[in-house]
Amino acid sequence: MSHSSINAGRLLAHIDELGAIGRDDQGRLTRLAASDTEKQGRDRLVAWLEAAGLDVVIDRIGNIFGLWQSEDNAGLPALMLGSHIDTVINAGIYDGCYGVLAGLEVIETLREQGFAPARPIAVAAFTNEEGVRYAPDMLGSLVHVGGIATEAALATVGTDGTTLGSELARIGYAGAVAPGALKPHAYVELHIEQGPVLERDATPIGAVENLQGISWQRIIIDGVANHAGTTPMAMRCDAGLAAARVGLFLRDHIARSNAPSVATVGTMRFEPDAINVIPSRAVFTVDLRDPDEERLQALENTLAGELRRIIAEEGVTVTVERLARFEPVTFDRAIVEVIETSASARGLKCRRMTSGAGHDAQMIARIAPAAMIFVPSRDGISHNPREHTAPADLVAGANVLLDVVSKIAGRP
Amino acid sequence: MSHSSINAGRLLAHIDELGAIGRDDQGRLTRLAASDTEKQGRDRLVAWLEAAGLDVVIDRIGNIFGLWQSEDNAGLPALMLGSHIDTVINAGIYDGCYGVLAGLEVIETLREQGFAPARPIAVAAFTNEEGVRYAPDMLGSLVHVGGIATEAALATVGTDGTTLGSELARIGYAGAVAPGALKPHAYVELHIEQGPVLERDATPIGAVENLQGISWQRIIIDGVANHAGTTPMAMRCDAGLAAARVGLFLRDHIARSNAPSVATVGTMRFEPDAINVIPSRAVFTVDLRDPDEERLQALENTLAGELRRIIAEEGVTVTVERLARFEPVTFDRAIVEVIETSASARGLKCRRMTSGAGHDAQMIARIAPAAMIFVPSRDGISHNPREHTAPADLVAGANVLLDVVSKIAGRP
Repeated sequence: MSHSSINAGRLLAHIDELGAIGRDDQGRLTRLAASDTEKQGRDRLVAWLEAAGLDVVIDRIGNIFGLWQSEDNAGLPALMLGSHIDTVINAGIYDGCYGVLAGLEVIETLREQGFAPARPIAVAAFTNEEGVRYAPDMLGSLVHVGGIATEAALATVGTDGTTLGSELARIGYAGAVAPGALKPHAYVELHIEQGPVLERDATPIGAVENLQGISWQRIIIDGVANHAGTTPMAMRCDAGLAAARVGLFLRDHIARSNAPSVATVGTMRFEPDAINVIPSRAVFTVDLRDPDEERLQALENTLAGELRRIIAEEGVTVTVERLARFEPVTFDRAIVEVIETSASARGLKCRRMTSGAGHDAQMIARIAPAAMIFVPSRDGISHNPREHTAPADLVAGANVLLDVVSKIAGRP
Repeated sequence: MSHSSINAGRLLAHIDELGAIGRDDQGRLTRLAASDTEKQGRDRLVAWLEAAGLDVVIDRIGNIFGLWQSEDNAGLPALMLGSHIDTVINAGIYDGCYGVLAGLEVIETLREQGFAPARPIAVAAFTNEEGVRYAPDMLGSLVHVGGIATEAALATVGTDGTTLGSELARIGYAGAVAPGALKPHAYVELHIEQGPVLERDATPIGAVENLQGISWQRIIIDGVANHAGTTPMAMRCDAGLAAARVGLFLRDHIARSNAPSVATVGTMRFEPDAINVIPSRAVFTVDLRDPDEERLQALENTLAGELRRIIAEEGVTVTVERLARFEPVTFDRAIVEVIETSASARGLKCRRMTSGAGHDAQMIARIAPAAMIFVPSRDGISHNPREHTAPADLVAGANVLLDVVSKIAGRP
């Protein structure tokens, strides 16, 4: 059996071109949600969607959809593809963008082949997936499935004091369409793995059957500011040292427990943040993940217990704010099987796997059958300029997506 | 024997009035060196110096002097009093300001009494003592004694990217006089203790005979940014966790060694500082102090050894930048004895002690006999709005300074 293929040159050129948008003067890539640089990325994507003959739909939370529908399938729930184009700070070029641009590529290929889908096909770029500027992450897809009211999401205050709604309006991406108006029949998200498993196993395709649960907390520890020279060590109430214990404790605990859990203290801020003053306050975040809900809850409880010990031993006070909490997600078994079958038919080794990262697919899974396709990440690195996936792997993943879409959207 | 006294009401009013300058809308006091709020404080001080009939001298590094000289002592080295009026962030009202305003008060009292000093008496407010905005701290007095070239000090880049020289010019305190032109015959600095010793011993006066050595370092730890969800704990190179080890190690080490050393990690910054990204970089400061030079060097070496262990165990790289280094200082024995004698004559209990904080006196001690007088700090707290010294203690300290000045500047 011979297989059709997506246009590899066009897909790779699109990825490179989008990856050039949002570079600072040191060449670092940053497109935070609803920022000036992300607006440039959005504008480019919309131009490509329009050039491909798709209907461009922008909803109130700024989600962008490129919709391919015909007279005889208009109004039916769409097979939805996609991901996001916002990035972390100093990012790589594949995370999110690959899924959006491969979705566009698959639609262009099918149109060029004269494929007549039984239902509309849409490619989506969801707002604020990364959550760097506005918390929680995956906010656009969360709004799409009705997990948070649109007004509440628009009122989200970012790390820079802006609100998402005003920033979307400022960059011209506060659309008029009600979020969720475009109903998915099913959702397939193609993404780089962002972890080391596929590369280590020399496996080009991952059929993602489930996704880790995620717990995000902001922790504020208050001690007593005091002079760094005159306050004996035993008389201190140092918020910074109390904060330092948390990340190290979590690492030790997870190592002892031998669980697949991960814990990250990714942000940290001291007050008053002066060389010669004992920190009165430390504000930091904890990101906990585990594919098993019971184990994730146990990890949260263990952290809470350690915070109680820290309060008792350091004399500090602790405030915990829950920023985001998502239970582990199980993807649609039938779509996972279509991914496996499609990879196998192309002679591509495929393994079922768990996603360690959060993805928009986990939100859409609340309202429609959903699954994900992973391709290898070199050295497992992501959220970093060294993020890389070999062109052959990018093309192979997009071709598997092409086949999956053909099967799901094809006429019976 | 009856004693003359400074004007207690005037001194306390001056302290309160200066302490009201630099409040933000939440009432927090911050007068960082050469800032807009510190300019307001400087303007007020200069007005008071002029109203007291003193010659106001401002040098190129922004040090302010109020000079009392007469026809028959003009040109002789001056007995210098003083301290600083810049503050940390969210500060108390006594640190530094008390020494400057008590110096002014002593001069005003002596003038009102018709005292005829054998030599000029000057009160100094040295620039950037706190070192919060510009490093190193005690920069104005360091320049005064020739410890750093004026041009180099003026070129210092602050935490906000400004240079000290341009900020001094902007606020109108880049004077024309060469730093060091005003030669001290001796220097006496009255200051709050900023520690718990005097209060604990119910002792109103400290005769400070020496001062801890200070070592300031900035440490940059570089790891690898990576996705917080997909990177197994064992495969991480987390700059934030590596940084967390440093402060905790130093605390444990000092507790084991039973030394009077103190160590503080007062500032901390992560990059990229995102919830879901493993920190690629942690930048923080370490403040080490000990009254014994050999022990301070040993502590620095211990820290260097721990950093080597962290490099080996965490897979990070470490860059260390020395920000400031001052050896322990021994103050002038004769002035310390005059302080003791003066306190004793007023029936005030006095103890010899070590200063845990850095002070301008340690700089002036390089070129002239110098010593300090301490008064109690409630709960030992400083660099904090709760910083407090009882009015009776403030007045007692100023009266001891009055007596010390009378003896040192009196005619033989």
